[in-house]
Amino acid sequence: MKRAVILLSGGLDSTTTLYYALNKGYTCQALIFDYGQRHKRELRSAVAVAKLTKVPYQILKIKFPWKGSSLLDKKMPIPKSRFPVSPFTRLSNIPSTYVPARNTIFLSFALSFAEAIGAQAIFIGANALDYSGYPDCRPDYYAAYQKVIEKGTKAKKIKIVTPLIDLTKAEIIKLGRKLGAPLEMTWSCYQGGSKPCGVCDSCRLRAKGFSLYNKAS
Amino acid sequence: MKRAVILLSGGLDSTTTLYYALNKGYTCQALIFDYGQRHKRELRSAVAVAKLTKVPYQILKIKFPWKGSSLLDKKMPIPKSRFPVSPFTRLSNIPSTYVPARNTIFLSFALSFAEAIGAQAIFIGANALDYSGYPDCRPDYYAAYQKVIEKGTKAKKIKIVTPLIDLTKAEIIKLGRKLGAPLEMTWSCYQGGSKPCGVCDSCRLRAKGFSLYNKAS
Repeated sequence: MKRAVILLSGGLDSTTTLYYALNKGYTCQALIFDYGQRHKRELRSAVAVAKLTKVPYQILKIKFPWKGSSLLDKKMPIPKSRFPVSPFTRLSNIPSTYVPARNTIFLSFALSFAEAIGAQAIFIGANALDYSGYPDCRPDYYAAYQKVIEKGTKAKKIKIVTPLIDLTKAEIIKLGRKLGAPLEMTWSCYQGGSKPCGVCDSCRLRAKGFSLYNKAS
Repeated sequence: MKRAVILLSGGLDSTTTLYYALNKGYTCQALIFDYGQRHKRELRSAVAVAKLTKVPYQILKIKFPWKGSSLLDKKMPIPKSRFPVSPFTRLSNIPSTYVPARNTIFLSFALSFAEAIGAQAIFIGANALDYSGYPDCRPDYYAAYQKVIEKGTKAKKIKIVTPLIDLTKAEIIKLGRKLGAPLEMTWSCYQGGSKPCGVCDSCRLRAKGFSLYNKAS
């Protein structure tokens, strides 16, 4: 049996990634993080997706007492409209929504979990094309992390799998649709509101993806 | 001002490391982890050392729901007397006290904290000589982790400093004494008792260190 731990945020990318892993024959266990994010709404989506797929999940509560990000600190504004809509968005500056070492923390828990249950893989829906410019979403970061696993664990051979890393948002949507992922259940907006704000990076990247996907199909 | 985050367990090694960092002129902030360790007693030592040095500290509570280690799971026995007393102890097998990805998780939080407060360094008292054989205590693990920082953070240049990595336990004690570290306040035993058990790896390595230090001085 192939086992995997999957980092599930409740967004479009991680949901598609979960369907990808299931489609590849992995028996998955999901980790969901309640880390003080202002868009706590995403947790509801994550749980709904896990329940729909009957994938066992755990919600880990994590505290970032030092904040240092507009995704954690409600006194800081979420940036709006940082990029024009084009097929590819490569942002070179790192926005205030970057949470210091967040993916490194998430991966570390996933790694611990994977090692404890004897999983062979960790799936994460990171994407370095239509993304917010976070350094911990890029391929060379995951290559470096792979070395940490090799050097720092007993299991050594657990693989980090990033199936979306070089896809555009429209391509991710296409893949999700093909795999039957419930994209309408997912949540992307960074703001804490009950409806997507439509102007944060995450909303705009999502909207752009759907717009280009719809044009192409 | 040179700032550092220090991982403080309340043991001999991390206490000596804190004194080393302070001696090097770093303004330190300590992170202490309450992670369900059976030797929770060490937390008291960590807090006492932080208070003595007037280093600000935070206790982070972390859950390992999957356990997978005799340090977390009280139903598993702590191994006893695994090695003969000699000047150098290099254990090749990894004991059940190994906690999957523990140092990776600790470092990730330290990294997040360091990045958020603009610290230049993370100090950790890892030691790969008189140690329990954990892979996440070895130099090549820290070299790999350094790459993760470079690739995955905005700050990029935060250095992991491991001043004890190639010292024997007797040499660590010598360094601690020289720096005025309150070694008598530290706690090493893996068991959850109110007194050190004297037979776990950690007790035996500590006792061996003091014995060889006393002989040499």
